[in-house]
Amino acid sequence: MLPELIDLKTFRDALTRAPGLDETALQEAADRNGQLTKPPGALGRLEDLAIWYAGWRGDARPQVAAPQVIVFAGNHGVTAQGVSAFPSEVTVQMVMNFEHGGAAINQLAKAAGATMDVHALELDRPTADFTTEPAMTEAELLSALRTGWNAVDPDADLLVVGEMGIGNTTPAAAIACALFGGDAADWTGRGTGVDDAGLANKTRVVTEGVALHANAGDGLDILRCLGGREIAAMAGAIAAARILRIPVILDGFICSAAAACLADASSGALDHAVAGHQSAEGAHGAVLEKLGKKPLLNLGLRLGEGSGGALAINILKSAVACHSGMASFAEAGVSDG
Amino acid sequence: MLPELIDLKTFRDALTRAPGLDETALQEAADRNGQLTKPPGALGRLEDLAIWYAGWRGDARPQVAAPQVIVFAGNHGVTAQGVSAFPSEVTVQMVMNFEHGGAAINQLAKAAGATMDVHALELDRPTADFTTEPAMTEAELLSALRTGWNAVDPDADLLVVGEMGIGNTTPAAAIACALFGGDAADWTGRGTGVDDAGLANKTRVVTEGVALHANAGDGLDILRCLGGREIAAMAGAIAAARILRIPVILDGFICSAAAACLADASSGALDHAVAGHQSAEGAHGAVLEKLGKKPLLNLGLRLGEGSGGALAINILKSAVACHSGMASFAEAGVSDG
Repeated sequence: MLPELIDLKTFRDALTRAPGLDETALQEAADRNGQLTKPPGALGRLEDLAIWYAGWRGDARPQVAAPQVIVFAGNHGVTAQGVSAFPSEVTVQMVMNFEHGGAAINQLAKAAGATMDVHALELDRPTADFTTEPAMTEAELLSALRTGWNAVDPDADLLVVGEMGIGNTTPAAAIACALFGGDAADWTGRGTGVDDAGLANKTRVVTEGVALHANAGDGLDILRCLGGREIAAMAGAIAAARILRIPVILDGFICSAAAACLADASSGALDHAVAGHQSAEGAHGAVLEKLGKKPLLNLGLRLGEGSGGALAINILKSAVACHSGMASFAEAGVSDG
Repeated sequence: MLPELIDLKTFRDALTRAPGLDETALQEAADRNGQLTKPPGALGRLEDLAIWYAGWRGDARPQVAAPQVIVFAGNHGVTAQGVSAFPSEVTVQMVMNFEHGGAAINQLAKAAGATMDVHALELDRPTADFTTEPAMTEAELLSALRTGWNAVDPDADLLVVGEMGIGNTTPAAAIACALFGGDAADWTGRGTGVDDAGLANKTRVVTEGVALHANAGDGLDILRCLGGREIAAMAGAIAAARILRIPVILDGFICSAAAACLADASSGALDHAVAGHQSAEGAHGAVLEKLGKKPLLNLGLRLGEGSGGALAINILKSAVACHSGMASFAEAGVSDG
């Protein structure tokens, strides 16, 4: 199903040619939804979610049985510019925490009945500082995409990707600014909690990076010049899921920046994705609007790790459980108005 | 723990004298939250939820292990005024559907790992039409409150109450109008889907009922005059949970109307409750504002049955799982910035 990722052209071609959802299953699911024992539309967005999921899985009465959470970690040369409240050592420390089960995402994946994998991408070799040169070479981008591409379990039926990378709201803001325009200040937020001076500094860094790489090219080129290894790995995983028709729940600001690079490279690249939540990181709402994705949750999370995406898994599971488990008016002997 | 409900005075007194949350556990939970491996506040409302839950359970590191969903069903004399798109027979048909596991709430309770109980309250004896007389006598109110009161499992650690009762958005709107003032039109919505003429008729019915019972008294008197058996049973269950210190997730418009009657009778009656969601039934947002409750979810549900409350159980479970399962900075060897 998934071609071997031998070069960036393979990636672009596979993404562009990825199959759409199953229109027959979609229609059958919509028909089934209309017969269930509830007033029309009374389950709101749960109904849309279940029908969408049925279409992507090619099954009018599906189950969510095997959700997968993958967390990618990377380090960033741009942290030399003092863009984060935490030191870069925290990235590897948090990877250990993921592996020992102590982080928020461990608890959230477990509460959602999801498997969880962690991939640390060359943490001792940060990307280059994008204010002076491209963050990654083409070979480095390909390698990071491949990590994500190969991390997706082909038997998963739902995917959430998350990240850990001290400083990575800065590349995410730079990507958003390069893709969507406007001023750096429109896309730059406080991340894990920088103060006013820190925010001004981050904004300067984003401004400089976007100016230096203004003519990078499409979303994948922007990802290479301004992104990071964990961001590229997320993009690789989301793309693989698109090709495998595994629905994706997007996480927050950084995940959405990764996804936005794909959407820029191929217009239908995120048709298999919903937004799990709206992060408290200021510009996330604007990124989701640009992507045309309405978040399922808005609970003030701004942690990353895939936390908001994982929290939304149970919403999707509940939607699909209603769709596939409910009786029809005829089965239950209920008058349909 | 829970006194026998011998009369309405017992109910009022027990509600007024109900114990508050455990301030020590609350403080210990807040302290623990500050040490967990995440930037301060990065889990947003999940942090507040977990600390609040810890306070009510008297345990700084709690689990949500035994959630209970209870669905109450009742019929309404006011349906003679043509206020619903569905016939009253649907109430008993849906009770059968609950008992056979075919309704949305069955799937949602199961997805949340909750037990589910169903109590049908004298479906063959609808309440009186509140446009001509009080919906219930004092004995009928007490009986319905008692059904809810006794339905709560003292060993539950979380409660969601829901309802089924054809026509019951009309008494809920009348209760809201009587408690909070304004015009009937401010509180009257389309319920399961009446058309414009139906909405005008519902508004007339609410106007007449509220006018007739304008001087009923406090929230419990309003509940008797304008409510219904399943609405009173929900109030009885929420009150019992308050006394037992079992946290409650409120469901939608009708559940919130029941809760509002309690809050009017005793100001701290809903301190143990959060709003699970904001219903698409138009006035629900306004009721939640009056109650000072910010909804956890806003997904366009307008089904009742406890569906939105049950859907939010996994949010609370996830919040508590993070709080109680995460490692501290010291435990994980992570630098705290």
